[in-house]
Amino acid sequence: MPDISPRARAVPPSPIRKLVPMAEQAKARGVKVHHLNIGQPDLPTPPELLAAVRSFSGDQVAYSPSQGEKDCLDFFLEYYRRLDLALERPQINVTTGGSEAILFAFTAIGSPGDEVIVPEPFYTNYYSLAQQQSLAVVPVPTHPEDGYHLPAAREFEKLITPRTKAIMLCNPNNPTGTVYTDAEVEMVAGLVKKHDLFWISDEVYREFVYGDQTARSALSFAELADRVIVVDSISKRFSACGARVGCIVSRRKDLMQACLYMAQARLSSPTMGQVLAAAGHLLPASFFDATRDEYRRRRDLVHESLNSIPGVFSRCPEGAFYTMARLPVPDADEFASWLLTDFQKDNKTVMVAPGSGFYATPGCGLDEVRIAYVLKLDDLKDAMETLRAALEAFPRRLPKAAGAGGAAS
Amino acid sequence: MPDISPRARAVPPSPIRKLVPMAEQAKARGVKVHHLNIGQPDLPTPPELLAAVRSFSGDQVAYSPSQGEKDCLDFFLEYYRRLDLALERPQINVTTGGSEAILFAFTAIGSPGDEVIVPEPFYTNYYSLAQQQSLAVVPVPTHPEDGYHLPAAREFEKLITPRTKAIMLCNPNNPTGTVYTDAEVEMVAGLVKKHDLFWISDEVYREFVYGDQTARSALSFAELADRVIVVDSISKRFSACGARVGCIVSRRKDLMQACLYMAQARLSSPTMGQVLAAAGHLLPASFFDATRDEYRRRRDLVHESLNSIPGVFSRCPEGAFYTMARLPVPDADEFASWLLTDFQKDNKTVMVAPGSGFYATPGCGLDEVRIAYVLKLDDLKDAMETLRAALEAFPRRLPKAAGAGGAAS
Repeated sequence: MPDISPRARAVPPSPIRKLVPMAEQAKARGVKVHHLNIGQPDLPTPPELLAAVRSFSGDQVAYSPSQGEKDCLDFFLEYYRRLDLALERPQINVTTGGSEAILFAFTAIGSPGDEVIVPEPFYTNYYSLAQQQSLAVVPVPTHPEDGYHLPAAREFEKLITPRTKAIMLCNPNNPTGTVYTDAEVEMVAGLVKKHDLFWISDEVYREFVYGDQTARSALSFAELADRVIVVDSISKRFSACGARVGCIVSRRKDLMQACLYMAQARLSSPTMGQVLAAAGHLLPASFFDATRDEYRRRRDLVHESLNSIPGVFSRCPEGAFYTMARLPVPDADEFASWLLTDFQKDNKTVMVAPGSGFYATPGCGLDEVRIAYVLKLDDLKDAMETLRAALEAFPRRLPKAAGAGGAAS
Repeated sequence: MPDISPRARAVPPSPIRKLVPMAEQAKARGVKVHHLNIGQPDLPTPPELLAAVRSFSGDQVAYSPSQGEKDCLDFFLEYYRRLDLALERPQINVTTGGSEAILFAFTAIGSPGDEVIVPEPFYTNYYSLAQQQSLAVVPVPTHPEDGYHLPAAREFEKLITPRTKAIMLCNPNNPTGTVYTDAEVEMVAGLVKKHDLFWISDEVYREFVYGDQTARSALSFAELADRVIVVDSISKRFSACGARVGCIVSRRKDLMQACLYMAQARLSSPTMGQVLAAAGHLLPASFFDATRDEYRRRRDLVHESLNSIPGVFSRCPEGAFYTMARLPVPDADEFASWLLTDFQKDNKTVMVAPGSGFYATPGCGLDEVRIAYVLKLDDLKDAMETLRAALEAFPRRLPKAAGAGGAAS
């Protein structure tokens, strides 16, 4: 029989989802599982958006234009205008979630064998989507002690080869929650200019910033119009992950033309999702304030709770709704499985995403987990207590001295 | 500035959609445009399916599982069971339209530079999606005079190289409307077995067959379980193109695992589309009979009308809702533009898809157009009369002797 392709064999399973069968078995045993493992917000989709879907009056769910439904494009254009990032219509294409925007960006910037530099740890699907497009992800290491902030420019430059086509930055960051400082963002801007690279900027968590800082958009660098590609999505912003509506944005003309042709090749993004997204214009400018406050409280609770557990270390994440935590365990994969198969406290357990899944470098992230704070405060509190008890009970817990200590900012 | 990739530059614009601005200008001038150019059915989406969307009771549009929403998978499994094509659950993955199923299939079967043999003319997006995945489409010619039926096995075998990974067949065919005979399908089965290839079978028009024949599914060849990949979609079957719900089906285990991992990398197909599709189980077994009867009447009208126009030739298409017609013009691209920019009869014109867009071989299809009979009978009749008048008025119409003549089966 014919072989499947090496690139298909190389697409890894989702590290977030491979524990799913174990979680299902735990639930079947009557154990409540707190899901800290996936970036699926628990907040409701704004009712105005759901109402738009429920009141869909057409007699047919037809193709939308490949660039996007007019109302949905109008919504995005106005959204960017309010961010002081005015765009012309050909500079945006609606995509089927942020995922498709990444796929278009990867296809557009590189040929098979070309390379994209990404700070590590990174969103696993960058790796999977790059594999599908026969690109190599070249990780530039960041460290828990630095809050996963970027290393000096020379650390990027060491990795630049003739095959390097882009630097990719997720800001605010999934999985670390890091919001890069203006100085860091400017460093990346300098690097892509100096080395004639594209800059793929994943800004789907743009609003999820809890301090006074803002996550500066790559689009704000007017002089980089020819090399900036922004990946965006309504999934997290509007708690509407299943709508599958995002967009790719660039002022680079030939690139956006290629994206439009790729969009034509898949005909249309989902029409009902675009009907939902277009209703975003009904939301008040203050819409996100309550959401941000809620996530800030969760962030504070998780950060405080984690660092109060002996041997656990987690820098305070500035944004998104994730944090990476270093645990006093030799193998967080094993710990994450054990949580689901062998542990329960008051008939409850937690599900976390093992850190190794966010690293391309072998052996990295073995003692880390990603925690998504997408639960209500009470549940989150309970989940943190459960995690504390689990770490006490875990047979292969490392002695305290081996942990990174509780000191954290 | 950095270059965009050759593969992105090579993705062609949709031949069906590039005339759109001209059509918009015609409409702005007050001219009615009969759209024969795109496979967007005019029939309504079944009300039961729209009702499912409108009565969505969740407070959030969340991710669905990457393999597909349970109810949607159940619907597809039951659908295939009724076709006597029983599947196990891991043998199917819901996709974001048939387009994504093609993308998954291409990624899974080949490495950059590998080849897929496809009868020509073919659905343009095969070429675009193959380009994105760095695969080459190798066309095997078919001819209007033969109703675009397949050539002998040796014509395929001439094209097989060490890089050939698959034969792809769309049955019933877009753009030709051809339904391959059992003998033709068996020939393809023999070829993929003899030469150890995959068989990608696009069966999205499965029910659109107007004679006594059936379009035999590649899945019916039990001995080809390791090499058959079926691409499917509800878009045409349920007049729900914008739902973006399809599936990829194969009994090949490692291939479906790779597809699941690719599905995880894009997280989820659209949830509202899957809610719509899952309601397909509410439709009676006879649901498609009325649809088929309607399209048969249209097919007959179009076939008869076309062949009554001097110099036009079109074999009677057996299925789908397309036909290719040879016109007495030197350049159908130019004619299609002229229809929109310079012609009107009683303030109406028609939009057709130029044939060259369905050929990879340069110079082919120049005197052909694809006509989608997706209009109500009265409109279709009017469109045919308009086309007749346009061909009479076209300044560069070829003299009758140069046309293929009106003889047609």
